[in-house]
Amino acid sequence: MKNKKRLLSGNRPTGLLHLGNYIGALQNWVKLQDEYECFYMVADWHALTSEYQDTSELAHYVEQMFIDWLAVGLDPERSTLFVQSDVIQHAELTLLLGMFTPLAWLERCPTYKEQLQQLGHKEIATYGFLGYPVLQTADIVIYRAEVVPIGEDQIPHLELAREIVRRVNYYYGKGNPILPEPQPILSPVPKLLGIDGRKMSKSYENCIYLSDSQETVSAKVRQMVTDPARVRRTDKGHPNVCSVFDYHKVFTPERVEEIEQECRTAGIGCVECKKILAQSLNTLMEPFREKRHKLQAHPERIKEIALAGGERARQVAEETMKDVRKALKLFLK
Amino acid sequence: MKNKKRLLSGNRPTGLLHLGNYIGALQNWVKLQDEYECFYMVADWHALTSEYQDTSELAHYVEQMFIDWLAVGLDPERSTLFVQSDVIQHAELTLLLGMFTPLAWLERCPTYKEQLQQLGHKEIATYGFLGYPVLQTADIVIYRAEVVPIGEDQIPHLELAREIVRRVNYYYGKGNPILPEPQPILSPVPKLLGIDGRKMSKSYENCIYLSDSQETVSAKVRQMVTDPARVRRTDKGHPNVCSVFDYHKVFTPERVEEIEQECRTAGIGCVECKKILAQSLNTLMEPFREKRHKLQAHPERIKEIALAGGERARQVAEETMKDVRKALKLFLK
Repeated sequence: MKNKKRLLSGNRPTGLLHLGNYIGALQNWVKLQDEYECFYMVADWHALTSEYQDTSELAHYVEQMFIDWLAVGLDPERSTLFVQSDVIQHAELTLLLGMFTPLAWLERCPTYKEQLQQLGHKEIATYGFLGYPVLQTADIVIYRAEVVPIGEDQIPHLELAREIVRRVNYYYGKGNPILPEPQPILSPVPKLLGIDGRKMSKSYENCIYLSDSQETVSAKVRQMVTDPARVRRTDKGHPNVCSVFDYHKVFTPERVEEIEQECRTAGIGCVECKKILAQSLNTLMEPFREKRHKLQAHPERIKEIALAGGERARQVAEETMKDVRKALKLFLK
Repeated sequence: MKNKKRLLSGNRPTGLLHLGNYIGALQNWVKLQDEYECFYMVADWHALTSEYQDTSELAHYVEQMFIDWLAVGLDPERSTLFVQSDVIQHAELTLLLGMFTPLAWLERCPTYKEQLQQLGHKEIATYGFLGYPVLQTADIVIYRAEVVPIGEDQIPHLELAREIVRRVNYYYGKGNPILPEPQPILSPVPKLLGIDGRKMSKSYENCIYLSDSQETVSAKVRQMVTDPARVRRTDKGHPNVCSVFDYHKVFTPERVEEIEQECRTAGIGCVECKKILAQSLNTLMEPFREKRHKLQAHPERIKEIALAGGERARQVAEETMKDVRKALKLFLK
C-alpha cells in the first residue's frame, strides 16, 4: 500500500448513478484500485453548490451512491470510500487555499461561466459556486493525491489546482514543497449518450440508471433513437448514425462487426438489434443488481462503511493539515 | 451564565494593540463581561486575508494579543478567549454559508472596494478576501451570538451577516430558525487619532502601543501635534484643534475644563500640558504593564489559556454545527 501512488476522485450526489457514469468513470475506478491507493469521495458539499435550496434528496442520493459504488466493485477493503462533509478538514484547507487564490483565476474558469448560463435558473452565482475549484483543490491535495483520473473537460480545473498549490509552495515551501501538484490520468473513455441521443443527464430524463431493473432497461432500450432513414424493416441501416449501434460498440464488443454487417444489409431489424443490446446491458448489470439487492437490505452496513472510510480519510487529512498549519506558522499548531 | 445573552467580538493579529484599540473596543469589552457571555476571538484566519504572503510575525502577534487582552482585564474565567484557527468548525460553517451567499452581496460591500484600493499593493483581490464577511458571519453565528459590539463602519457587514442568516433560515428553518440574526451594540466610543493627527494605524507609525514603556509613551506624547497657530509659549492656544487636548478629554477627564481654560489663556504651555497627558496615560497603563510583565514571564500559561478557550469554543461551535448539518440533511449527521 505504501509504495502505491495516491489517487482521488469523486462524484456529486445530485442524482442516481447511470450507465454513462459507469462507462465514463466507475469502470475505470474499479481497475485503478489495483494500481493506486484510491480515495473515492461522495462530494456532498459540491452537490450543495447547485442544490443548496433543497437538500431533501441529498442523503438518499449519498446512500444510493455508496450502494452503486459497492455494487460495481469499489472495495472498501482496498480503497477509502468516504463522504466529503465527514472530513471537515476539507473546509479548513479550502479556507486557507482561498487566501492564495486570485479571483481572476476563478472567474476565467471555463466551466464557471458555462454553468452560470446553463443553471442560471437555480441562482448559483454564489460565493460557494465560484469557489468550487478551490474546494476541489483542497479535496485532492489534502490527501496529497498525486494523480486524479479526469476527462478532458476537467483539465482547466486541475491546472488551476496546480497553480494554487504552486503559489502556496512558493510562499511557504521553499525547497520543501508542502503540497504535491496533482497530475491528471487522462483515460480515453467513450462518452455514452442518453437514450434520446443527447448527453446522458438526469435533467433530460434520458438515463439508464445502474439501479434500473431488467424490465426498465429493456423498455428504455426500446425507446432509443436509431437511424432515422431506416423506416421499414427491409430498409438498410446506417450504424454510424445509430445510437443503439454506439452502445453495441461499448456493450456488445464481441458481436459488433456482425451487427454492423447485418444492419447495413437489413439482415437484422431494429427491434431484434435492441433486444441484443438490452441483453448485453442486463448481462453486465445483473451482478450489480444482485449486490445492490443484498446491500439495500442492510442500510446500517452502508453507514458503517461510510463512517469507517471517513475515519480513515480524516486521519490522512489531519496529517496533511498539521503540516499546512505549521508551514503557515499558526500560533497553536 | 445561562441567562446572559451571548456576544462575540474579535481582533485581527496583524500588529500590536494600541491605545486606539483600547479606547475604541477593549475598554468596552472588559465592561461587557459583566452583562454578557462573551466570546473574544483572535482572528488569525482573518489576518491571513491581507497577510497571506508572510506570516512570520503572526504567532508573535497572536501571543501579544492574548497578553494585552489579559493585561487590560479580559478574564478567561468569565469569558471565552480563543484563537479562530483553533476551531475549524468556523471553516465548515463558512463553506456552507458561502453556498447561500450571492456574489453580488459581497461585491457591493462598501469595505471591500475601499480595502481593495487601500491595500492593492498586497494583491488582496483573492477569493479569501472577498469572502471575509462570510467568515465573519460564521464567526458570529457559530456561537449563536445574539449581539456584536461594533462601530458604525461595520454596520454593513453585520447587515450582510443578518441577510445570510435569514436566507439559511428561509430554506431550512421554517418556523424554527436554525441560527439567530445577530444584533449590533453600537457604543458611542470616541475615536482616538494617532500622534500625528491621522487615523491611528500601524502603517502610519503613529501608534501608542499598550506594550509601550513609560519612557516611550512620554516620548511619543512629546511628538504629538498641537495647535499650529501657537508658536510661542505666550501665544494663546486653541484646544479645539489640538490633538493633545483631544486626548485629555479621554484620558484626563477630571481636569479637562481646567486644561482648556489654561490653554486658551496661555496659562499652561504645550510642554507642561503634554507632561500631564503622559502622566494620565502612564497612570492608566501602569497596571497593564505590571500584568504584562508577569504574563511575559510565563508564555506557557498564555498557551494554556488559549487552548482552554479553544476547547470551550469548540464545544459550543460543534453543538451549533450538529444542528446545522442536521437541518441541511447531510447523510452522516
